[in-house]
Amino acid sequence: MSNQAGRVQTERVTARDHGPFPGSHKVYIPGSRADLRVPMREVRLQAGSVYLYDSSGPYTDPAARVQLEKGLPALRAAWLRERSGLESAEGNGSAFPTPRPRHRAQPGSNVSQLHYARRGIVTAEMEFVAIREQQQIEQQQESAPLHPGDAMGARLPSQVTPEFVRREIAAGRAILPANINHPELEPMIIGRNFRVKVNANIGTSAVLSRIEDEIDKMIWAVLWGADTVMDLSTGNHIHETREWIIRNSPVPIGTVPIYQALEKVEGRAEALDWPLFRDILIEQAEQGVDYFTLHAGVKLAYVPLTAERLTGIVSRGGAILAKWCLSHHRENFLYTHFEEICEIMKAYDVSFSLGDGLRPGCIADANDAAQFAELHTLGELTRLAWQHDVQVMIEGPGHVPMQLIRENMRRELDECSEAPFYTLGPLVTDIAPGHDHITSAIGAAMIGWYGTAMLCYVTPKEHLGLPDRDDVREGLIAYRIAAHAADLAKGHPAAQLRDNALSRARFEFRWEDQFNLGLDPERAREFHDQSLPKEAHKLAHFCSMCGPKFCSMKITAEVREYARQQGIRDVQQALDHGLEQKADEFRSGDRELYRPL
Amino acid sequence: MSNQAGRVQTERVTARDHGPFPGSHKVYIPGSRADLRVPMREVRLQAGSVYLYDSSGPYTDPAARVQLEKGLPALRAAWLRERSGLESAEGNGSAFPTPRPRHRAQPGSNVSQLHYARRGIVTAEMEFVAIREQQQIEQQQESAPLHPGDAMGARLPSQVTPEFVRREIAAGRAILPANINHPELEPMIIGRNFRVKVNANIGTSAVLSRIEDEIDKMIWAVLWGADTVMDLSTGNHIHETREWIIRNSPVPIGTVPIYQALEKVEGRAEALDWPLFRDILIEQAEQGVDYFTLHAGVKLAYVPLTAERLTGIVSRGGAILAKWCLSHHRENFLYTHFEEICEIMKAYDVSFSLGDGLRPGCIADANDAAQFAELHTLGELTRLAWQHDVQVMIEGPGHVPMQLIRENMRRELDECSEAPFYTLGPLVTDIAPGHDHITSAIGAAMIGWYGTAMLCYVTPKEHLGLPDRDDVREGLIAYRIAAHAADLAKGHPAAQLRDNALSRARFEFRWEDQFNLGLDPERAREFHDQSLPKEAHKLAHFCSMCGPKFCSMKITAEVREYARQQGIRDVQQALDHGLEQKADEFRSGDRELYRPL
Repeated sequence: MSNQAGRVQTERVTARDHGPFPGSHKVYIPGSRADLRVPMREVRLQAGSVYLYDSSGPYTDPAARVQLEKGLPALRAAWLRERSGLESAEGNGSAFPTPRPRHRAQPGSNVSQLHYARRGIVTAEMEFVAIREQQQIEQQQESAPLHPGDAMGARLPSQVTPEFVRREIAAGRAILPANINHPELEPMIIGRNFRVKVNANIGTSAVLSRIEDEIDKMIWAVLWGADTVMDLSTGNHIHETREWIIRNSPVPIGTVPIYQALEKVEGRAEALDWPLFRDILIEQAEQGVDYFTLHAGVKLAYVPLTAERLTGIVSRGGAILAKWCLSHHRENFLYTHFEEICEIMKAYDVSFSLGDGLRPGCIADANDAAQFAELHTLGELTRLAWQHDVQVMIEGPGHVPMQLIRENMRRELDECSEAPFYTLGPLVTDIAPGHDHITSAIGAAMIGWYGTAMLCYVTPKEHLGLPDRDDVREGLIAYRIAAHAADLAKGHPAAQLRDNALSRARFEFRWEDQFNLGLDPERAREFHDQSLPKEAHKLAHFCSMCGPKFCSMKITAEVREYARQQGIRDVQQALDHGLEQKADEFRSGDRELYRPL
Repeated sequence: MSNQAGRVQTERVTARDHGPFPGSHKVYIPGSRADLRVPMREVRLQAGSVYLYDSSGPYTDPAARVQLEKGLPALRAAWLRERSGLESAEGNGSAFPTPRPRHRAQPGSNVSQLHYARRGIVTAEMEFVAIREQQQIEQQQESAPLHPGDAMGARLPSQVTPEFVRREIAAGRAILPANINHPELEPMIIGRNFRVKVNANIGTSAVLSRIEDEIDKMIWAVLWGADTVMDLSTGNHIHETREWIIRNSPVPIGTVPIYQALEKVEGRAEALDWPLFRDILIEQAEQGVDYFTLHAGVKLAYVPLTAERLTGIVSRGGAILAKWCLSHHRENFLYTHFEEICEIMKAYDVSFSLGDGLRPGCIADANDAAQFAELHTLGELTRLAWQHDVQVMIEGPGHVPMQLIRENMRRELDECSEAPFYTLGPLVTDIAPGHDHITSAIGAAMIGWYGTAMLCYVTPKEHLGLPDRDDVREGLIAYRIAAHAADLAKGHPAAQLRDNALSRARFEFRWEDQFNLGLDPERAREFHDQSLPKEAHKLAHFCSMCGPKFCSMKITAEVREYARQQGIRDVQQALDHGLEQKADEFRSGDRELYRPL
């Protein structure tokens, strides 16, 4: 692996210059030790503040001076140093200008968060996550009553304690993906009893893109709310691209190792074998990849189930492994070597993201025999991984019409013993190429409500080309909408506070507060200013949509004081009042209700 | 009302120059009489055709030469001439260069489609609608099995006959909005046992916009799939704007007459009265408005129920009437004069769109007492309108978190005796100003599935400003996605055919067919071409997303032939096969599954 670092032109990475969103300030909530400071985004309003979950890392902290060629500060370094059972790994970091030392567990040791959780140990990462998930809700006043959610079987706590985090991880209902070789990580958790998360895919392809473009997209992604990022690079410089991304990423990084494996055998799937694949797993684990998508459930016997499909196998990994199985007429080597893979995973605390290689690629193929056969095997593998104290999440579809989405969630919980579900979309129709961030955000919101723990975004370019920066942003906004809508529906304690704060700002014509509380303050301001550009209009009690005379908000404010004087507080009183009044009208002869035209 | 026609610069209306979408051809399906020809969009593929519902009118027919100052051809003129009970109306059409004769029913006559339907008469409009809704499905072969839908109580027929249309209208479950003074209309139907429809709002405001911009938006809207258009103009030239829009609109036009009424009293809600309002209803009915939003359910007694809301009353019409009620301490004059309004409606066949003036304006206010009190009254008014054989649909919210959407549909069906529901969104969160086409498309897809008959679009500019042309397009695409997803989920017979045709094109690398079958062929092609611009790439068996080696579709095609030779057809066989194979492996000593790292 040659050192390609000299080729990376870091000045081209402009996303890091974005800085904090308007009105937002990076704050750090202290934990039980001096080096445990949990970042949060405080949005300061005309009066009071709202605290938001913040995935953007040091890039939105004006006090942090990020130098990409040095990587982010090693936030977890001291925590890891204090942990027993670690040793140096031989792998070198020569793909990066400032190489980091590599570690792994000593033989016989297990350094996974699941391993600690099951032994009753609350790690620093778990405490970090507890503070982060709590979102300072105790600091935020809310006078309006909140809707009860329908959590569909999830059990969201009113207070997220470190012990609650530990229990959820120990039960396998949540994962805390945090490779010991990714000390730059700000820990986060994926589980249906926590805030719904969003993943963004980036990565070079053989056709397009440079390393600096992918670093730029990674930073752009965390700015716009990505909780994890998958580097799906193919083509050249896979190793170097990944190194730069991990060293500069405050969020967990996932990969699909079979892509690199296929590059090594020059695209000939049948030439893959376990020794080659194992070396790649170790190489990536030593770099600090936090979770691996592994299509270990694509069993030889399931491949024929896809033959009558409208669109066959659409997962790249799934197709590669299906081809391998058929070429050799042997069982998938990821399945047969699964426990050896577990040994690697626990030596670095890499989490499994068990891939859905047989997911449906169109509406017609949704919920078919191939898909559910693989899901059954993913459940079997989940329990095997848990025997090794290795963390697991399960990947899900894909393309599913609305009436069939719920069954996906029910089966996943059932087959995979409540391991967290991580779904791509699903797209609820195939007819909108160019707008599949929307077709899929619909399905994502629904399956998020039903219990999916992390939603893999889809950009407008899906099916058509590699996403650029703008696509990453559009995809993330659509998915933050879906994830937040799911949190609201489940009754997440923090979710509705933000909606209420924004709606109150809207009602009170605090335009700046409304913009700043939104998912996209820049777009909101830009749209507003297209018709009313002057600063004075930010104080106006109307917008261009209705003009000053018609603004219902303004009229409502005028009638509100009057209305308060009425004693009617519920529907029955209102209905009774209506009947009395009508009787009065009849008695007074004002019977115009029945006057003919 | 002065004639402003001279000020309209029709050359600025460029949407009419768009023409048909690539690969699409306007075809007309003949009915039982020579002047009954139902437009449809035939998408010609490399092999075969797909027929799509087509709302775009003559604007996508290269054989039609539209002259805006003359208006569209009067498609329904002969049908209306043959109808008894009509007389000339005195209203003049001087706001338009080519005035059309105005008609109304003779005293004592009723010309509503509901009136005919209840008498067993199948009108030409009903036959037109039946052919249109059938979408030529008998012409389209489909080898793949279709998913059964979950229609949530709707009863979609496999064959849409004119008699089925008549029965649905007679039962009040559907409306066919078709003012006798809108002969240019291509009839359509709104009901939950038909294809889900989409409405687009346009209209000038006091702050912005010219008549020609609104004509342009109307044409743009029908091009991108609007089934009806509401002209929500406020400010000056309301009458002229509406006249130009109706004369050139192939889809039903709806209005909110209280906006014009408020202009007449210079914005002083308390100065409104019934005689003034009645004149405006007649003026608009004579112009050809097909449905009126009337906030007749905002009763005086319900106004205090909004006092504790986070965002009060957000409907403009609702706020105006609430203010009127409080100012006079009298009952809403639309409520007290409701039967007189019915007399006007039946003289022109204007349909009621009973407005939800007390709809929630934020998540916190969803499903509250005020909202449901008004809905109860809308049910009462529905049955009163039906006594007059006047068609009715019911407007719905608004802002509703996902877990509370279903209750809206259930209550509407129950309170309003299954009259069609017409909802704005609902937005499932308040936190994304600038992207509310997405927040609301999520709710729209869900409520469409649950039974809403027409979805009122929301553009990205919602809450921020007046939508421009681009916003109209984005809003419509998002809502066509939602409506189609709802049709799919309900099991609409024609819906999945399009998804399958597109997915098959995708799988077979027929890029042009894939683009042309999509909701937005232009965007799909543009995105594809950003990375692979050459025409030769339209034949390539890969895209820039994965590059040539990694294309799962390509790999799948390679393995497919092999897979077909396997005898495994269901999950149990596959699982059994897997177990047998594992046993074989054990017997042969190939136990690498348990080999340690």
